[in-house]
Amino acid sequence: MVIVMAPGATQADIDSVVDTVRSAGGEAFVSRGVSRTIVGLVGDVDRFSALNLRSRSGVSDVVRISVPYKLVSREHHRERSQVLVGGVPVGGSAVTLIAGPCSVETPEQTLAAARMARAAGASILRGGAFKPRTSPYAFQGLGEAGLKILADVRQEVGLPVVTEVVDPASVDLVASYADMLQVGTRNMQNFALLQAVGSAGKPVLLKRGMNATIQEWLMAAEYIAQRGNLDIVLCERGIRTFETATRNTLDISAVPVVQRLSHLPVIIDPSHSGGHRDLVLPLTRAALAVGADGVIVDVHPDPASALCDGDQALAGRDIADLADVMTTMPAMLGRTLAPAPEQAAAGV
Amino acid sequence: MVIVMAPGATQADIDSVVDTVRSAGGEAFVSRGVSRTIVGLVGDVDRFSALNLRSRSGVSDVVRISVPYKLVSREHHRERSQVLVGGVPVGGSAVTLIAGPCSVETPEQTLAAARMARAAGASILRGGAFKPRTSPYAFQGLGEAGLKILADVRQEVGLPVVTEVVDPASVDLVASYADMLQVGTRNMQNFALLQAVGSAGKPVLLKRGMNATIQEWLMAAEYIAQRGNLDIVLCERGIRTFETATRNTLDISAVPVVQRLSHLPVIIDPSHSGGHRDLVLPLTRAALAVGADGVIVDVHPDPASALCDGDQALAGRDIADLADVMTTMPAMLGRTLAPAPEQAAAGV
Amino acid sequence: MVIVMAPGATQADIDSVVDTVRSAGGEAFVSRGVSRTIVGLVGDVDRFSALNLRSRSGVSDVVRISVPYKLVSREHHRERSQVLVGGVPVGGSAVTLIAGPCSVETPEQTLAAARMARAAGASILRGGAFKPRTSPYAFQGLGEAGLKILADVRQEVGLPVVTEVVDPASVDLVASYADMLQVGTRNMQNFALLQAVGSAGKPVLLKRGMNATIQEWLMAAEYIAQRGNLDIVLCERGIRTFETATRNTLDISAVPVVQRLSHLPVIIDPSHSGGHRDLVLPLTRAALAVGADGVIVDVHPDPASALCDGDQALAGRDIADLADVMTTMPAMLGRTLAPAPEQAAAGV
Amino acid sequence: MVIVMAPGATQADIDSVVDTVRSAGGEAFVSRGVSRTIVGLVGDVDRFSALNLRSRSGVSDVVRISVPYKLVSREHHRERSQVLVGGVPVGGSAVTLIAGPCSVETPEQTLAAARMARAAGASILRGGAFKPRTSPYAFQGLGEAGLKILADVRQEVGLPVVTEVVDPASVDLVASYADMLQVGTRNMQNFALLQAVGSAGKPVLLKRGMNATIQEWLMAAEYIAQRGNLDIVLCERGIRTFETATRNTLDISAVPVVQRLSHLPVIIDPSHSGGHRDLVLPLTRAALAVGADGVIVDVHPDPASALCDGDQALAGRDIADLADVMTTMPAMLGRTLAPAPEQAAAGV
Repeated sequence: MVIVMAPGATQADIDSVVDTVRSAGGEAFVSRGVSRTIVGLVGDVDRFSALNLRSRSGVSDVVRISVPYKLVSREHHRERSQVLVGGVPVGGSAVTLIAGPCSVETPEQTLAAARMARAAGASILRGGAFKPRTSPYAFQGLGEAGLKILADVRQEVGLPVVTEVVDPASVDLVASYADMLQVGTRNMQNFALLQAVGSAGKPVLLKRGMNATIQEWLMAAEYIAQRGNLDIVLCERGIRTFETATRNTLDISAVPVVQRLSHLPVIIDPSHSGGHRDLVLPLTRAALAVGADGVIVDVHPDPASALCDGDQALAGRDIADLADVMTTMPAMLGRTLAPAPEQAAAGV
Repeated sequence: MVIVMAPGATQADIDSVVDTVRSAGGEAFVSRGVSRTIVGLVGDVDRFSALNLRSRSGVSDVVRISVPYKLVSREHHRERSQVLVGGVPVGGSAVTLIAGPCSVETPEQTLAAARMARAAGASILRGGAFKPRTSPYAFQGLGEAGLKILADVRQEVGLPVVTEVVDPASVDLVASYADMLQVGTRNMQNFALLQAVGSAGKPVLLKRGMNATIQEWLMAAEYIAQRGNLDIVLCERGIRTFETATRNTLDISAVPVVQRLSHLPVIIDPSHSGGHRDLVLPLTRAALAVGADGVIVDVHPDPASALCDGDQALAGRDIADLADVMTTMPAMLGRTLAPAPEQAAAGV
Repeated sequence: MVIVMAPGATQADIDSVVDTVRSAGGEAFVSRGVSRTIVGLVGDVDRFSALNLRSRSGVSDVVRISVPYKLVSREHHRERSQVLVGGVPVGGSAVTLIAGPCSVETPEQTLAAARMARAAGASILRGGAFKPRTSPYAFQGLGEAGLKILADVRQEVGLPVVTEVVDPASVDLVASYADMLQVGTRNMQNFALLQAVGSAGKPVLLKRGMNATIQEWLMAAEYIAQRGNLDIVLCERGIRTFETATRNTLDISAVPVVQRLSHLPVIIDPSHSGGHRDLVLPLTRAALAVGADGVIVDVHPDPASALCDGDQALAGRDIADLADVMTTMPAMLGRTLAPAPEQAAAGV
Repeated sequence: MVIVMAPGATQADIDSVVDTVRSAGGEAFVSRGVSRTIVGLVGDVDRFSALNLRSRSGVSDVVRISVPYKLVSREHHRERSQVLVGGVPVGGSAVTLIAGPCSVETPEQTLAAARMARAAGASILRGGAFKPRTSPYAFQGLGEAGLKILADVRQEVGLPVVTEVVDPASVDLVASYADMLQVGTRNMQNFALLQAVGSAGKPVLLKRGMNATIQEWLMAAEYIAQRGNLDIVLCERGIRTFETATRNTLDISAVPVVQRLSHLPVIIDPSHSGGHRDLVLPLTRAALAVGADGVIVDVHPDPASALCDGDQALAGRDIADLADVMTTMPAMLGRTLAPAPEQAAAGV
């Protein structure tokens, strides 16, 4: 941590900062510049943060140098991690396709979507039973009935299930049905929820907040990790910018940036970021090419009747096109498509 | 709602849209342009939204014309509303100062801050017992012990209390101590929480999400209203932009925009938007001048030792300056400073 | 300047940075932390910037501490500046109203608008002869014919004129007619234009780029100042954010921030930031209350026929309302409305 | 174009809008909704724009339906275009690598960089002689001396040259040396410059403004096209967002969006968007995978001594890695790397 003194700071101001830091058990090095003096701090940064040095007389700025996350940082865990979801790997040499309907609507629709997902190369099924919606008048999901449908379809199709949880009170319920818990973009800083999923004993898919910096996203992961759960997969799904031609702006650079900062796997959601069917395949190709550990894609047997986000769901011959991308691109990039469970025995 | 057909849309595409709308009980008017055809829809827009018309063959775009909120809309309630918090008015002719410490730390600090708040002209006390923090390693608030301190200080100083609630599970607990429940910026789209505070029987202070559009903010208020609670005060607290010189960018235009769209009172938080003590007074003056129904300000008896956001808390002679603004500006603008409770009997 | 070494930096990496800095005539202080080492640099920061230290082996980050502007910085000129425009002051104790039509269309329209401006309390006339327009098919301004109209109207109404210049090649032409040259938001980083207006011998109104940070804005002013022209007035006119309810988001906090960083006067454009007539008066009140040195407002005798931005022009009884704000608010705030020229003899 | 009437609009208000449109030679269709009436306009939209309908009594909003650009629109030119730069194709089946130093510094450095570019697979050389810099104290480029170096190096290495022009006054000079004129991000709405390059008789590389919407970018291209020059290549180079981990946020979705809206080729600049060497290769792979028509990359023989943007220049074994990407990826995607000139005879 570096303390930048104001041009008019007095010697007493500087001494006061140094004394405060030393009283807190740290060390402080003073560098006098032509117009400013800076004080370098060595020791426990989190303790320094509590000192409110920015409020001190003569202090102009406080610059944090080290990163504020620990458990999810690559500095503390050089090897990149692999997370297993019902036996299916995410991360490592595997590239994983997660696919399914945005919302679980009926058993038939969910089963059909799961078969489409599997045909496209997916090894994990996505589907929403609890839906956070901007409008209280929009379809909010089937709740537990939806979870039961997902469990039945898992039985039938053989894919482990990831589904969203929106409330700490329903984490146990969702965890009793799902193989992986999803925290959505609007809940990325719902800290009570992060702590609850951190204690639920299931892998977590943590979507980036649409307004969150990469650092805040990793801090959200740290909340989960701090409860003892390091089975976290990060998901970039677009950030909010001034551009209105797409639903959100996919921050594709976030993938290599996160891979440098953290050991956690990171995937991309090309459906929600673009918000339009025509963008899903180009963005999927880009996601794999940039090095993402997978993609999560909306599919629906009849997008025109979908109760949620029908504009972006793949259907019909898009599925064959997606299957083509998933079977050819990982190999080109020296990686392997994560197989669906019954093939998992052969090893990934 | 208006459906914009693509340049290459066929007559069959247009007929299909019209038929779908009519089957759903609506009416559709076709206007043929030189290069495009548009279809105007009349009827229940929420029903049309469920038709996924954007997915139809030949459809280029769907433009929503009417606003998606109802209960909080000014179209349905011309008169601007006044909310009472422990007898203190927010909205109407009153301008209300809410002040107090960012976090409740000790009984002494909270009592001192409450006295500063009162001296500055405040009629409502703010103070956080449950604190949402970006880092799991930062001070998270005193929890119920903090609520008890707030209740004791209310007794002593005579100001009703607003405090944040971060989890649906603790809404009843917080409501048992507080006069008003605050939903913070990171929880503005925590829909489970919105529904819980909507049912709690207390007024709600709804902060704008730092990435939320004004429309999304009003939709969040609609979630609360839909549970039967229209005692909602909106609070603009800065949005996230590319500018880094301030903590967030105060969107001061949001006040007149919201006042045109909604009947709910709207206040400004100059402390969290600017993030710096020196900005609080200028932004408070601007807030009153633009027509806000009040401001909410951080004060602390010793900012240098504050456990949260000490950089922005007012102290010392700032308090007298704030009192000066609060006693002179409302009158210039034809409004009245909402008096603290014991004076409330005299009427506002 | 502070160099942050990567966790794995070697002693040789650190020595190499220190040697490079010393070879460039600077001094370097090394502070060893638990997980990182930082090197504080003392000396000519601009020379250090050219060393590309970020590219060195073992370097993780380079943090600039001092501000990169000099001539416009308040560190080098404590007193806040006042700029005279045809004898009318902007800055200091004066609050100045600049008003007029967005575009000069006809002599009659410009004269009528100038009289409205004067009636509203303006002491400087604005009006565009060269208009930068997003579409090549939109009205681009009258060019020199417009400048002549402005000069005639100045003669008639007695207000000095500010008008936009969009091309270095026309700076001399515009300067031969105008009392102040305006650099528009889209040209804030048109460096050839900044240098040309810096050499033109007239005061400059520098609008903030809609995507520019405050620091970039001050650097643009530095380009003008570096050519020997310190008669610069800064104008905040809204930045681009995700919010679509207003044309741009007025960054009102920029006023006190700029006043802390720079000695230059700073005014606000409530017409272009909000983009809607109804917002002009509330934002004008907020601008004065926050401490701006003036406002620049669009007026038009017949907004419905305006060739540019008619949606935001004041007309009719708005003018009386604006006059009311301009005559009452500066006094409340301890300032004086800058009088129009013939009254200037009485002193401001 | 659609006019949305306010809820309280009268019949007279509606009639007035309809009459105005008809007087302007257009047709208007009225659709009465439950709470609002909309009026659909058919005819010349640009003429309607000049009517200021938004200012009319009873008008709530005006929604433009058709796109405001014509010459660059794909609606008017279904086939995607190919632009030839000194004989080298950009667009069509070709994927083109443009590479070279950010700034021309010396003949030796430029020659070395050009050889690196060629080794990496480039068929066009980039290099800046006129540099727009945020600080007036930073290196501003060699000017005409730099253009001469570029011309000499072209002679030696055989690659056509693209270089930036920053001022309308120097367009002819730059065009006399260069094969393609670059308009930089800060000049995307420098309309005088756009018109000048539109008349210069050379292909243009138009970088997206870092704050420009895709529509504004296409309107900027329309300015060039309107002067008779349709040899335009668009370049996405990152937009400004709240994220600070990268220099800008690469909007990779812009590529498929632009390809749907416009017939012009579109390439990506992975160097300036990410701002860091480590991001260049992953983003190059992503650019090709998403379907971009090429990439433009900074290379430098000695990044640590570069006078501009050394942090992002490729060097050493990065060049071999880039060559590997350029020789393998286009084929995987069914495209061909555009060959450097002497190989061009063999056809692309």
